[in-house]
Amino acid sequence: MSSSEIEQAISLLSKLPTLGPRSARRAVLFLLTKKETHFAPLISALQSVHDNIKTCPMCGNMDTQTPCAICSDATRNKSLVCVVQDVADLWALERAGAFKGVYHVLGGVLSALDGIGPDELEINSLMQKVSTGDISEVILALPATMEGQTTAHYLSDRLADTGVKVSALSRGVPVGGELDYLDDGTLQMAFKARREF
Amino acid sequence: MSSSEIEQAISLLSKLPTLGPRSARRAVLFLLTKKETHFAPLISALQSVHDNIKTCPMCGNMDTQTPCAICSDATRNKSLVCVVQDVADLWALERAGAFKGVYHVLGGVLSALDGIGPDELEINSLMQKVSTGDISEVILALPATMEGQTTAHYLSDRLADTGVKVSALSRGVPVGGELDYLDDGTLQMAFKARREF
Repeated sequence: MSSSEIEQAISLLSKLPTLGPRSARRAVLFLLTKKETHFAPLISALQSVHDNIKTCPMCGNMDTQTPCAICSDATRNKSLVCVVQDVADLWALERAGAFKGVYHVLGGVLSALDGIGPDELEINSLMQKVSTGDISEVILALPATMEGQTTAHYLSDRLADTGVKVSALSRGVPVGGELDYLDDGTLQMAFKARREF
Repeated sequence: MSSSEIEQAISLLSKLPTLGPRSARRAVLFLLTKKETHFAPLISALQSVHDNIKTCPMCGNMDTQTPCAICSDATRNKSLVCVVQDVADLWALERAGAFKGVYHVLGGVLSALDGIGPDELEINSLMQKVSTGDISEVILALPATMEGQTTAHYLSDRLADTGVKVSALSRGVPVGGELDYLDDGTLQMAFKARREF
């Protein structure tokens, strides 16, 4: 069939999220037909990401510089810490441009099923950060799933003793959301949390 | 947001078939969390494919050796030539293991809309192969699409003068196919091409 080199590349590619064996094969064939314009640049871009991207020791973001561009940005409010599940969520919030503080990446959420307890997450480092007294507010931007909300409750319990202000993202009808298509939980939440117009 | 290195890798990955910006971002983050077990091996596998895989000058297959493993396999019947659209289709036929001859990759199918005429495809090299007189049969394994069948008709016209036997894959009900779910065209074809049981 195809050579072992190609099989090896296909098998590694097929383990990436959203890819499978068939799409990995198509990707490799696509690259082989565009060797100079696409294949070589992709390899060198991946190599440069592999070599240069480090985890920020302060927030857990991934960047070429340590501390990362967000942590070393003097214009950002270091007393506001936004707790996120992972780097993907951090980037999503940055794309939205809604927040000008700093982040703290947990590295996941509590999950009894997956055996992820508080010690598997960056919770002690968060408590340490807060204990310095330089933090005025911790914003929990965790997913609106069972695990995410369990984690948010756990964190707010732990943070209660420190006296720091703890907040969470508001819940309700998303922008562009048709009420008819929304789930019951979101509608109930939107009613409960209704605000004066 | 994320560094320009990461953006560059995401933008190149997102141009692969079946991937988009969101899945490319997820793929890069996945790789960054598995640097040693997955990221480094993937880069070296892609590099080795890039450096070592060549197009076979005889059939158009991609392999580390030239001529490719199929063309240099002495046990294969060199007088049977199977014409395929691209390397993906060649590999699919090889996986099925139904054919022990050699291949000829056209590099596409005729398409007036996309401006692909006979000169854009490997048709002259096919005619040359056939004119040597060593070929007993040309099997047209082209897609059952409008363009694929136009190409098959064009090729069988061109090959008619050479006196070589020209055949095509049979058409009908696929293995495991429920009649109720098949399109009308396939059912009509299966009736027209019915065989004695």
